[in-house]
Amino acid sequence: MRALVKEAPGPGMVLKDVAKPTIGPTDVLIRVRKAGICGTDGHIWHWDKWSQARVKPPLIVGHEFMGDVAEVGAAVRAVQIGDRVSAEGHISCGVCLLCRTGQAYICEHVKIIGVDRDGCFAEYISMPENNVWKLDPSVPDAWAAVFDPLGNAVHSVMTAGVSTKSVIITGVGSIGLMAIPVARAAGAAKVIAIDINPAKLELAKRLGADRAFDARDEGLQQRILEETNGDGADVLLEMSGSGAAINQGLGFVRNGGRAALLGLPSDNVSVNLAENIIFKGLTVLGINGRKMFETWYQTQALVVSGRVDLAPIITHVLPFGRFEECFNLLQDGKAAKIVMDVAS
Amino acid sequence: MRALVKEAPGPGMVLKDVAKPTIGPTDVLIRVRKAGICGTDGHIWHWDKWSQARVKPPLIVGHEFMGDVAEVGAAVRAVQIGDRVSAEGHISCGVCLLCRTGQAYICEHVKIIGVDRDGCFAEYISMPENNVWKLDPSVPDAWAAVFDPLGNAVHSVMTAGVSTKSVIITGVGSIGLMAIPVARAAGAAKVIAIDINPAKLELAKRLGADRAFDARDEGLQQRILEETNGDGADVLLEMSGSGAAINQGLGFVRNGGRAALLGLPSDNVSVNLAENIIFKGLTVLGINGRKMFETWYQTQALVVSGRVDLAPIITHVLPFGRFEECFNLLQDGKAAKIVMDVAS
Amino acid sequence: MRALVKEAPGPGMVLKDVAKPTIGPTDVLIRVRKAGICGTDGHIWHWDKWSQARVKPPLIVGHEFMGDVAEVGAAVRAVQIGDRVSAEGHISCGVCLLCRTGQAYICEHVKIIGVDRDGCFAEYISMPENNVWKLDPSVPDAWAAVFDPLGNAVHSVMTAGVSTKSVIITGVGSIGLMAIPVARAAGAAKVIAIDINPAKLELAKRLGADRAFDARDEGLQQRILEETNGDGADVLLEMSGSGAAINQGLGFVRNGGRAALLGLPSDNVSVNLAENIIFKGLTVLGINGRKMFETWYQTQALVVSGRVDLAPIITHVLPFGRFEECFNLLQDGKAAKIVMDVAS
Amino acid sequence: MRALVKEAPGPGMVLKDVAKPTIGPTDVLIRVRKAGICGTDGHIWHWDKWSQARVKPPLIVGHEFMGDVAEVGAAVRAVQIGDRVSAEGHISCGVCLLCRTGQAYICEHVKIIGVDRDGCFAEYISMPENNVWKLDPSVPDAWAAVFDPLGNAVHSVMTAGVSTKSVIITGVGSIGLMAIPVARAAGAAKVIAIDINPAKLELAKRLGADRAFDARDEGLQQRILEETNGDGADVLLEMSGSGAAINQGLGFVRNGGRAALLGLPSDNVSVNLAENIIFKGLTVLGINGRKMFETWYQTQALVVSGRVDLAPIITHVLPFGRFEECFNLLQDGKAAKIVMDVAS
Repeated sequence: MRALVKEAPGPGMVLKDVAKPTIGPTDVLIRVRKAGICGTDGHIWHWDKWSQARVKPPLIVGHEFMGDVAEVGAAVRAVQIGDRVSAEGHISCGVCLLCRTGQAYICEHVKIIGVDRDGCFAEYISMPENNVWKLDPSVPDAWAAVFDPLGNAVHSVMTAGVSTKSVIITGVGSIGLMAIPVARAAGAAKVIAIDINPAKLELAKRLGADRAFDARDEGLQQRILEETNGDGADVLLEMSGSGAAINQGLGFVRNGGRAALLGLPSDNVSVNLAENIIFKGLTVLGINGRKMFETWYQTQALVVSGRVDLAPIITHVLPFGRFEECFNLLQDGKAAKIVMDVAS
Repeated sequence: MRALVKEAPGPGMVLKDVAKPTIGPTDVLIRVRKAGICGTDGHIWHWDKWSQARVKPPLIVGHEFMGDVAEVGAAVRAVQIGDRVSAEGHISCGVCLLCRTGQAYICEHVKIIGVDRDGCFAEYISMPENNVWKLDPSVPDAWAAVFDPLGNAVHSVMTAGVSTKSVIITGVGSIGLMAIPVARAAGAAKVIAIDINPAKLELAKRLGADRAFDARDEGLQQRILEETNGDGADVLLEMSGSGAAINQGLGFVRNGGRAALLGLPSDNVSVNLAENIIFKGLTVLGINGRKMFETWYQTQALVVSGRVDLAPIITHVLPFGRFEECFNLLQDGKAAKIVMDVAS
Repeated sequence: MRALVKEAPGPGMVLKDVAKPTIGPTDVLIRVRKAGICGTDGHIWHWDKWSQARVKPPLIVGHEFMGDVAEVGAAVRAVQIGDRVSAEGHISCGVCLLCRTGQAYICEHVKIIGVDRDGCFAEYISMPENNVWKLDPSVPDAWAAVFDPLGNAVHSVMTAGVSTKSVIITGVGSIGLMAIPVARAAGAAKVIAIDINPAKLELAKRLGADRAFDARDEGLQQRILEETNGDGADVLLEMSGSGAAINQGLGFVRNGGRAALLGLPSDNVSVNLAENIIFKGLTVLGINGRKMFETWYQTQALVVSGRVDLAPIITHVLPFGRFEECFNLLQDGKAAKIVMDVAS
Repeated sequence: MRALVKEAPGPGMVLKDVAKPTIGPTDVLIRVRKAGICGTDGHIWHWDKWSQARVKPPLIVGHEFMGDVAEVGAAVRAVQIGDRVSAEGHISCGVCLLCRTGQAYICEHVKIIGVDRDGCFAEYISMPENNVWKLDPSVPDAWAAVFDPLGNAVHSVMTAGVSTKSVIITGVGSIGLMAIPVARAAGAAKVIAIDINPAKLELAKRLGADRAFDARDEGLQQRILEETNGDGADVLLEMSGSGAAINQGLGFVRNGGRAALLGLPSDNVSVNLAENIIFKGLTVLGINGRKMFETWYQTQALVVSGRVDLAPIITHVLPFGRFEECFNLLQDGKAAKIVMDVAS
């Protein structure tokens, strides 16, 4: 089968023929149809410090996808050949404290497809049945391919709790953008997007942000107070991973507010804990992956109900063969979300 | 001043001249402009069993209203003459366990205006400053007059928690109807209204209910399962007070679901606790009044943001003098929400 | 192997030789050493209405036990031959909404050992690996054999939340008795036991109840108020299943309190929802089984830490052959918790 | 009356005669009997950077105390002359979002006695009735005088949630020490104290810590894992304010754990947000003051029930005149908690 492979340490990936994966008794073989490209895939392409430490080539990359079930193991119970599916890319161990208490999304021994084991930029992928998610027929293919990052947005929004609240989103990359319609659909009374990219801020407004501000605006603190009755925002969704944005965002949250941190800083961040967290009585929530599978139910409910519209976010759907163009678009910030048509 | 007074035990009320109320140092005198009529007011009009036990005539009736501040006591701090306001009608004691732990809405010694002390069907009402709610200029008068029942709906919805969930509302009287746009705005992925009044079910759909079913429909259990992936609904908002509806509604909730009970049964209800609550691991929430003042902030946020539209619910705004017509409309079920223009 | 079998509809059980169970690839064969007798086993013995509707003889009875792993299936990962274990007796389906969202304890398709499939009153039992719980070496055998009912108590206490609170326990059968040291260890500031059996109330005091009252005491409402600063209790743990106790207990809870219902009424219960749940703003929690496996972690933590002492509750440990005596003791209310030594 | 006064910028305080405070209509005059000395008082004595920025001399210092009500304002309702009381030292505004939603402890406009207005190191203090806490007769005077810091410990413990959990306390100054019996009484299954002061660690053990470790112990990470089944601790209570302790403590918490931060770092802290908060899915809780008045109810319940014993912590009770000795003891780390007998 064709697969996009990180063959060796160093930049780039290669589209090549590799052996089709085999499956065990509790696994499912999925014929991949569409796959989303994530910032993490870009890191692996460019072979950054994090990739060098974590990824062991050769490896098939990619972790966001949908497709059809082509084969099922002997002990598979609820998935059938022909099922149209997506899948949770975090393979949990099933036996640690977290796995046994409904928190498999923070399993102590998680393996991630496309990072720790072969991923979905390939014609076929083998997944444990437990990780497979059956798609409602009403979900478009390209949307289904990005349930993983959409799930990050949903997990952040739902953990923070946004019903009737004012919500600031710092960083409107693809997940931050997705968080806008998700937060609105989940009940936010006001959504304020903050970024430094004017095109992304425009897109944020199209997606339903009530306000979109440049993080470098000098009067921003004042504007946030004006938008929040002088109190500050109820909720922060931090999706940039930038230390500056984290501190700015925490400063914009009101006393007693909640901050969900999803963006991953590449280094330590110097935080004014006393002023921005302790005196304020803030609740700060580390967000990792998606709840297995509460987030998936929530995500599907939001999409199937028509409450969330992803169309403006999926800016490109390109054939598998044009993968280089995809990674270039991603790198140049010229795309929001790119989906590859792996079957074409 | 003119006031609608329950003068003596027995049916009916009288519009008559009474003395304008005086205020204490921590009170505010409000010139009432608009006032909503509640089912409770109807009970007092018709002098039902509950009224006979609770109400001590003579009494000015009414507890839903808005108006302008006409006078403030010497120790009043944050309210000024001319402020456009509504008010929480539950006067809490301020010193009991509940009041001192942020749960004044279930104060052990609550007094309710229009029930335990003079109410708002009058040109003026005296309220403790603590109970006064300053209105955002964007809130229409008639909507502001019904922040009390709207707050019941918001309190129910927010206590149950509806973000991304399927929600059944049993009983779409005025509060049940209000709960529809509130639940949608608060993030419900699907809202199912159940009642036996076809006109109310029609109105429910206009207000945003995804489905509206007759409670007597024989295949209803099956339809609910179809609408909820075979699991049952995530959330029940019980707003009828009917024993039959409560049992039916509990039966429609999925294992692990939540049921908020707002409707007040007039008698004991025979409940299958084992099947419908214990085995299911249900959470049943008694809902009383509105959180002081979290619910008010939430209510105002939903209205000011434009997420909730009350226009279809307020079917009548009539001058004070036509109060009898109002009570007749209410009695005949020909109105959803009636607001009296007390100033006209 | 020897097993205690319900051979046919009607009262009684038979100790007889049956085939040793075989195991599948994900199962574990456990050599049972000690097994607790539950009220449910008594219902099956006496063949009450519930048993007649649910149980299909022939069936090996029993669901509370501990033992040693004798054999493991090919796909078993974390359990080894020789491991000293107990097991969760609710076999969940693994694929329903509840199972996939960390709430397997309220699985829609649960099968219970000793009720829906062969149980633990036998020398061997086959269990799915997922249900097996590895025991800390410090847990005594007889205590380990009753982790199932102890888990019911822990699940009730932890769901209600008792830290610093006043707690009423209505019904001090074996689970109600266990709930006393559990509630104390979990942080309750005052534990009040209510029952009608003086011997059980005495035992309640020995187990750490701060107060033990007869439910028929005429001044009981007044005494509860005196014990709770005039407010009523913060928390009710209902463990009797008696309609009278449920209503009495709900009446003793303060406004804003929480009530966990574990006891199973055999019929509908007529409840004053308006006064006892709605006006009070109560939270009523249906309690079923044990959280898989959060409750097991909590249970083991309480026992291993020495915070909970079960010694006074396990009044009898008798050899398997004396099972009739065990069921008679249970029936006569002369035992708190009886453990059978299956290996002897 | 006699009062301990910060007369002017610079180190030290003066015991001198000042005018007895007058009270307004909603205030209460309290004759102070006993007062606790807090680290904050030490900062003001030594006139550190924080004091220079915040405190405006002349000012009567002190915020932890108990005494008897000597006078009540005309509008005071629930407090009477002769009542034995303590008081919440955070005077909240009563009208901001936080005050109106039951979160007055993080009021946007809080004034603290002994910091922003005259405090309790004086024979009399005037307090708003709302801030007064009536003491149960069973609470010893010296314990009642330290309900403020004890409340900090209780607020931390209860916000984190410790029932059945393993709890690490970093920093066992007086509040960290108090947190030990509080955490045990609130249900912690294991309490691990970490500090660098061997005498404090000894005292920690006497107060009920299951383990007490030196923060500089090289194998500490390993020992924590051994004490927590290899998972890490469920809960961190950070009470040192040291950046090193915060990072170390966060590193000791398991995935999905909770960390309550009470200790106030004097500078920004560089935190590995990705590894220690985000990937772990941690919940970090800023803790400020005490919940008004939920924490006070909890605190009193813990003390009155006998679940918490403060005796080992109150190492000194000295007459008012020996205040210099008190501040020296505090400075030299030779005391845990010092109480001044203001009436002697």
